[in-house]
Amino acid sequence: MSERRLVMVPGPINFEPSVLREMAVEGLDHTSSEFVDAFAESLAMLRKVVNATDGYQPIVIAGSGTLAMEASVTNFLKKDSKVLIVSNGYFGDRFAELLSRYPVHVDMIKPEVLGDAVSPEKIIAAVEKESYDLVTLTHVDTSTAVLQPVREVGKALRNKDTLLVVDGVCSVGGEEIHIVEDGIDVLFTGSQKALGVPPGLAILWLSPKALEKLKNVSNNLSPYYTDLRKWVDVMRSYESRKPSYFGTPAVNLIVALKKSLELILKEGLDRRFTRHKQISEAFREGVKALGLQLLPKEENVAHTVTAVKLPPNVDLTSFVSSVRGMGVLIARGLLKEVNYFRVGHMGSVNANDIIATVAAIERALYKHGYNFKFGDGLAKTQEVLFKYGF
Amino acid sequence: MSERRLVMVPGPINFEPSVLREMAVEGLDHTSSEFVDAFAESLAMLRKVVNATDGYQPIVIAGSGTLAMEASVTNFLKKDSKVLIVSNGYFGDRFAELLSRYPVHVDMIKPEVLGDAVSPEKIIAAVEKESYDLVTLTHVDTSTAVLQPVREVGKALRNKDTLLVVDGVCSVGGEEIHIVEDGIDVLFTGSQKALGVPPGLAILWLSPKALEKLKNVSNNLSPYYTDLRKWVDVMRSYESRKPSYFGTPAVNLIVALKKSLELILKEGLDRRFTRHKQISEAFREGVKALGLQLLPKEENVAHTVTAVKLPPNVDLTSFVSSVRGMGVLIARGLLKEVNYFRVGHMGSVNANDIIATVAAIERALYKHGYNFKFGDGLAKTQEVLFKYGF
Amino acid sequence: MSERRLVMVPGPINFEPSVLREMAVEGLDHTSSEFVDAFAESLAMLRKVVNATDGYQPIVIAGSGTLAMEASVTNFLKKDSKVLIVSNGYFGDRFAELLSRYPVHVDMIKPEVLGDAVSPEKIIAAVEKESYDLVTLTHVDTSTAVLQPVREVGKALRNKDTLLVVDGVCSVGGEEIHIVEDGIDVLFTGSQKALGVPPGLAILWLSPKALEKLKNVSNNLSPYYTDLRKWVDVMRSYESRKPSYFGTPAVNLIVALKKSLELILKEGLDRRFTRHKQISEAFREGVKALGLQLLPKEENVAHTVTAVKLPPNVDLTSFVSSVRGMGVLIARGLLKEVNYFRVGHMGSVNANDIIATVAAIERALYKHGYNFKFGDGLAKTQEVLFKYGF
Amino acid sequence: MSERRLVMVPGPINFEPSVLREMAVEGLDHTSSEFVDAFAESLAMLRKVVNATDGYQPIVIAGSGTLAMEASVTNFLKKDSKVLIVSNGYFGDRFAELLSRYPVHVDMIKPEVLGDAVSPEKIIAAVEKESYDLVTLTHVDTSTAVLQPVREVGKALRNKDTLLVVDGVCSVGGEEIHIVEDGIDVLFTGSQKALGVPPGLAILWLSPKALEKLKNVSNNLSPYYTDLRKWVDVMRSYESRKPSYFGTPAVNLIVALKKSLELILKEGLDRRFTRHKQISEAFREGVKALGLQLLPKEENVAHTVTAVKLPPNVDLTSFVSSVRGMGVLIARGLLKEVNYFRVGHMGSVNANDIIATVAAIERALYKHGYNFKFGDGLAKTQEVLFKYGF
Repeated sequence: MSERRLVMVPGPINFEPSVLREMAVEGLDHTSSEFVDAFAESLAMLRKVVNATDGYQPIVIAGSGTLAMEASVTNFLKKDSKVLIVSNGYFGDRFAELLSRYPVHVDMIKPEVLGDAVSPEKIIAAVEKESYDLVTLTHVDTSTAVLQPVREVGKALRNKDTLLVVDGVCSVGGEEIHIVEDGIDVLFTGSQKALGVPPGLAILWLSPKALEKLKNVSNNLSPYYTDLRKWVDVMRSYESRKPSYFGTPAVNLIVALKKSLELILKEGLDRRFTRHKQISEAFREGVKALGLQLLPKEENVAHTVTAVKLPPNVDLTSFVSSVRGMGVLIARGLLKEVNYFRVGHMGSVNANDIIATVAAIERALYKHGYNFKFGDGLAKTQEVLFKYGF
Repeated sequence: MSERRLVMVPGPINFEPSVLREMAVEGLDHTSSEFVDAFAESLAMLRKVVNATDGYQPIVIAGSGTLAMEASVTNFLKKDSKVLIVSNGYFGDRFAELLSRYPVHVDMIKPEVLGDAVSPEKIIAAVEKESYDLVTLTHVDTSTAVLQPVREVGKALRNKDTLLVVDGVCSVGGEEIHIVEDGIDVLFTGSQKALGVPPGLAILWLSPKALEKLKNVSNNLSPYYTDLRKWVDVMRSYESRKPSYFGTPAVNLIVALKKSLELILKEGLDRRFTRHKQISEAFREGVKALGLQLLPKEENVAHTVTAVKLPPNVDLTSFVSSVRGMGVLIARGLLKEVNYFRVGHMGSVNANDIIATVAAIERALYKHGYNFKFGDGLAKTQEVLFKYGF
Repeated sequence: MSERRLVMVPGPINFEPSVLREMAVEGLDHTSSEFVDAFAESLAMLRKVVNATDGYQPIVIAGSGTLAMEASVTNFLKKDSKVLIVSNGYFGDRFAELLSRYPVHVDMIKPEVLGDAVSPEKIIAAVEKESYDLVTLTHVDTSTAVLQPVREVGKALRNKDTLLVVDGVCSVGGEEIHIVEDGIDVLFTGSQKALGVPPGLAILWLSPKALEKLKNVSNNLSPYYTDLRKWVDVMRSYESRKPSYFGTPAVNLIVALKKSLELILKEGLDRRFTRHKQISEAFREGVKALGLQLLPKEENVAHTVTAVKLPPNVDLTSFVSSVRGMGVLIARGLLKEVNYFRVGHMGSVNANDIIATVAAIERALYKHGYNFKFGDGLAKTQEVLFKYGF
Repeated sequence: MSERRLVMVPGPINFEPSVLREMAVEGLDHTSSEFVDAFAESLAMLRKVVNATDGYQPIVIAGSGTLAMEASVTNFLKKDSKVLIVSNGYFGDRFAELLSRYPVHVDMIKPEVLGDAVSPEKIIAAVEKESYDLVTLTHVDTSTAVLQPVREVGKALRNKDTLLVVDGVCSVGGEEIHIVEDGIDVLFTGSQKALGVPPGLAILWLSPKALEKLKNVSNNLSPYYTDLRKWVDVMRSYESRKPSYFGTPAVNLIVALKKSLELILKEGLDRRFTRHKQISEAFREGVKALGLQLLPKEENVAHTVTAVKLPPNVDLTSFVSSVRGMGVLIARGLLKEVNYFRVGHMGSVNANDIIATVAAIERALYKHGYNFKFGDGLAKTQEVLFKYGF
């Protein structure tokens, strides 16, 4: 079968060809001036992608999003710290699983119904009642495709000692983030999602408040490798165009990151986020026109990934395998209790990808005996695409 | 806009990523044993792609298909030779334009109606009446997307002194060719079409009869660079694993050719030709369901490219530009007298490409005021794809 | 300046072009069968590179060598465990720095003279006297280029409950390792050194004894991301050709790893290690012929990296910058107390690299006023290369 | 053996990695605006590389240098035209072989001694005596590594009707050319030499005088594919940012050409030509210090390629094979009557390449029983490199 597959899982994605070519860069070590420049420029552009001001520090470490998650909390906690976890799914819960290894107190809020977000009011009530060191939000939970509102919570925490940690793995580069106005203190992501770079980079942003805390929390719980005090120094050094060492940076991935950030900023953030919104609407409307239901409640849908329930009589494994066999790589649901699949649409995603994905879903549903007319989903997707000028 | 465009013109096409990566090969000159092996293996595989036996000689020269066309005739002609050209469009006519530079007599047969092929009977009648040195056929004329029957003509010429020259630029690798049974003496193509390699290679195959003629026609009319006597020697040398020089071979393109031929043979010729037939049917049925008409008569349609007439009130330039703006690169018609566009579907083409192409055509037609319902074309394309198990 | 630099630092190195091209692979997610196969085959080949039997488990995680180091110890320690660190330099000391974050007891042995290895007898005496949970050795300390003998220590620990952890970051793929006979329980490296893959992969191997311990040490001290219980399950799943998730694997790097391991095994381990020995000798003899001295004692020299003392009047920063300006990327010494530089020679390193490196060192020394005759170093390097048939 | 070979033949060469990466560009056809821009910018930069003014027309065709040679003469000749060929070796003679296919009168001047250039006086005397339509010079004859003076001849022809055709295959991008002041009317090269792009592009430049002649010579002798009237129109169209078709351009090679030209102009022409002069001197002095002799007379040496005589008792085939086995790809001599080899040093060539090449030559000579001391050549090469600040 052709290698020209559509990678429609929620990361990795279809990377831009010019980003992929940069992956093959040669003749550089981590102290080469060409690399130092590429790293420094990437860090500067990482600020822009989340509308950060100079006081915010982006950090890039070799590792996956899970590593970033561990760094995002452990550096700001000490023994007996209190953490409030807001969880809309698997990745929200993961904070709890992760923190169970550490001597901290954890409370968790979840929505009453799977597919809802937690209302900011509820979170604010919780932080009013208890003095937390950290509150964690999952901006988009990749498992449920729910978008969690951030800004109201950020505002409520602004004048408290509490840090707001946001898992942006499935949102940064695809969903609008104004790190300052949103009041986010620690934001993190992985390279392979809406930032459009092959997997292997854990990326974090720290607010001035988080940086201050980092300095002051002696004996924090961070592992050695995720020690952000070390990494902040390394990043600052590179930003002042001097190489510095704590662990060898993933040189080729960072050069590719630079290229991808250039493309992102060239497209323009507004246009990019709008594109994600419109393309995701075209997809949602397409599958809904086929009679399928979304997992998330309509007002909480993410624009980077969509979770779609399968009719009860369609076997998940077999269905997903059918669609993938058509060269459209989609993902199973992560939660066992629901029969659903997930489609990522971020980064370079375009109208052609979405059309082909809805078409593959149609043909696979048909094959699995689901009753509808070919083109029902596609016609609706076309309408939405047309409406937005695609 | 994203670099992830669908290249749906009739060449260049969407190349397989692993073929493209080979384009960046380094550390080789044309005498390196690694290159010698790659060239020798490519030549062996080129025989297989057209079902040639060992007595047939494939030839690869740096250049475009037009160069191959010039080589395909001039090497077998001398002053006052007679040539019969069978033309179904622009590229058939091109033989005449080309030969007008040479001191030979040319007759031409064309179908009565644009979009038809010339009937083999008519060609056979002509070659019975007159003793031609060469007959040229255009297997698929890229301008009209007409597929010309070959085998009957080949049979009729087998015991004559006449050579059958077939322009396979838009067919080799996408349409079934049995060079022996089809009775083809000189076949040629360019790399960038159904063989799936970026443009820059002119490729020819000579039959034993053509090789014999090559030896015997002294003072043939070939230019220096296309002198096939020289190139046959070079190819034979490489096939016996010895480098040889006449002009520097396009090393990187040949390494990429090797990769593409491996993928082609791995897919299997039967499966490949069947795929081209089915995918092209899905496309044709899709556009027909929109009320559009094909340029070629139904029984002569090519499977590598389709020519579609536009409604008279839709402006060609504006329409093609709209579709291309959607990231689906299609081509204008080449003939001025008809309002039509062309879509290539060869090489790595798959169901996703076709769906996205029909969808883009739908949206562009809608934008240009053409009356139909979104999904009308797509539904039909889906049906055909489903029927064939895509 | 040309991008064609010689990367002669001790990692990253000059990668083979075909490995770099694989970095640009596209159309895969971490659950694609093509990726699953590539990962499974890489794991199988990783066993071969260190002569491991099936009971040994290789593990590949997105991260740097430092991450691998943290995983290598914390998974096998609990509160109050005892660790013996054998340190020949910066990276040996790093185990102590790392473990200072954890509630364990640490003893350290160092050689009396910088540049020596620690004698196995001394280590054995220490492990006889005290019951350690872990002993760590740095096979090649990248900071001093000292090669530490392993096997005698491995033998002494075989029947004890103690695990032998070996930092193979600067040795795996370049120095001979027989993980079974050497008695190594936990071995780790990074991708960017003698394994010849761009930076971003932390790679570990666990012995059956280590795997057993992993199961039994409840409440080990590992951070979440480095939890080898999770990763062992993921690796076993991939090896049985089923994708599994704990953190997104660095897909492109792993596909490149597969290519590099194929090249390594195609060369043959014996030939590869011999090449490293001979090339490194050619380098050492070249710089010695210039009157320079090595940092390590002659009997402890590593074959993957060499540490060379500069004459006292030659400024390190300026000298290294001169050589790098010649397109030969060498590294400063890591230890402040000695005026020295380091040259890596591993992976794809060849005679041409070494000659060019010695030549650049000659010209830079000359520029810095050091007294010798051009060609003195090169002549000696040539002799050694010639002796070995290069 | 490693793929990291030094390609030291006189083309193809070691291409810059970023140029090679561009070879893998995707998502473009020859009418894409991205490609149109790349082509137009390449043409503009091609003017700069030879110091051409706007009235000069560069032309890029898929093919090799040999194709360019055929185009360079046949377009300006008709039946019975007179050509003077100045030949310093195999490639000068090739003009005669090529023209023997055409009905024109050819005179040839050669130097009395192999390795000399032809004196401009002699050429001028010849053109004063006879009225030629064309005079051809080979700027650097790749077979002998002789540099032929051009400007004096150009001046003498300026006010005549004669066109000066210069074969710049082994010079453009490596030797200084001022196309206007040198009085060159038709200049041509191939991509794979000093322009630093993989083989497959034939490149020509036409002076206003040549363009005028092109218009006026009806019934010129050009083959169809090399018809420069067609290609001039195509180039002008692309330069005015409109795609145009005569034969499919080699899209990927042209995108790579653009990148290479950017690097060339970024380096600066003066610096580039100086580098070629200095590096070639370092090489020549190195081999001379080994007691070897050059084929060309000292005052005629080219700076892009060097031809070195082997001692009579050293077998050419075996010697070249030894050096190539060391990963340094050098070329045999092309002329049978002399026992010599050729080394290209152009494009990205640097001090490291030259040192490694001289070293490999030393070791191979030693192996073949030639008497000298290791380092004798290298020391001299080092001195020259040092003198020039490398």
